[in-house]
Amino acid sequence: MQVKDYIRTIPDFPHEGIMFRDVTTLFLDPRGFRMAIDQLLHPYAGQRFDKVAGLEARGFILGGAIAHQLSVGFVPIRKKGKLPGSTIEQDYQLEYGQATVELHDDSLQPGEKVLLIDDLLATGGTAEAGIKLIEKLGAEVVGCGFIIDLPELGGRAKLEAMGQEVHALCQFEGA
Amino acid sequence: MQVKDYIRTIPDFPHEGIMFRDVTTLFLDPRGFRMAIDQLLHPYAGQRFDKVAGLEARGFILGGAIAHQLSVGFVPIRKKGKLPGSTIEQDYQLEYGQATVELHDDSLQPGEKVLLIDDLLATGGTAEAGIKLIEKLGAEVVGCGFIIDLPELGGRAKLEAMGQEVHALCQFEGA
Repeated sequence: MQVKDYIRTIPDFPHEGIMFRDVTTLFLDPRGFRMAIDQLLHPYAGQRFDKVAGLEARGFILGGAIAHQLSVGFVPIRKKGKLPGSTIEQDYQLEYGQATVELHDDSLQPGEKVLLIDDLLATGGTAEAGIKLIEKLGAEVVGCGFIIDLPELGGRAKLEAMGQEVHALCQFEGA
Repeated sequence: MQVKDYIRTIPDFPHEGIMFRDVTTLFLDPRGFRMAIDQLLHPYAGQRFDKVAGLEARGFILGGAIAHQLSVGFVPIRKKGKLPGSTIEQDYQLEYGQATVELHDDSLQPGEKVLLIDDLLATGGTAEAGIKLIEKLGAEVVGCGFIIDLPELGGRAKLEAMGQEVHALCQFEGA
């Protein structure tokens, strides 16, 4: 089995017309979860990272495992209001309206190399906001790793236009 | 340095009078994060688990790392409305009002052994709800691991009264 085979599709979640790609069935399977972590790390073998940044909330599951595997620190990028210390924030567009993500302003040092991790690359709005936050602190995103890419939603193109190297384990058609 | 030394205290978060114990500074430090994962696993060396269950959201960071380390599957216990598949749910009391957590109803099989992980044991309300969900599916919680225990809030006593074995890496006085 490949990573994609462990992912379950749930129609009409969170609302009608969305085919939700559910990675919980991947995380649930011991071989699936390990395969996903191994494959997320594979392109970066031999590279040095200072930190792994994970996007709330499924990016925490993956990012925690990867930071532990690499023996580096983990940095959470959270929805507004969740981080207790002094933060910087970045807005991004949703389908309707906008949202904001935050990063502790003392969580990265200038020049540190960061691997950004999330489960899904759709429009790329959250990942773009996360990259901007990391760069505001003077750190450098040296890779963006995802389980799933939905190429029709343009996230990969958006991140590559920012000069980012994008790595995804599988693709699905549609939104 | 010990695990406790990496934890930062932020006064008056999320509201006045609360001394918030911030584990992000522990996760940020490569030695701190690794020490935390190693110590969470230490009492269970040689034991067999089928799954690690993590409580949203900081429990995802720790639980993902521990599931990967053990080569077992990871099961998220989430706030209501976040899991896309068919779920069971459990209410629990908050300081004001109540909240609900959910678990996918096909994520555990009867007889499976589960390690439950979160960052903080306070009143134990969320952990108790998580244990009830796991037991509803016929699985067994064989350990509950936390970074921080706030013993004055009674969470440890509550979980031990349920017959649970509780393991925490450090304690803080007060709420």
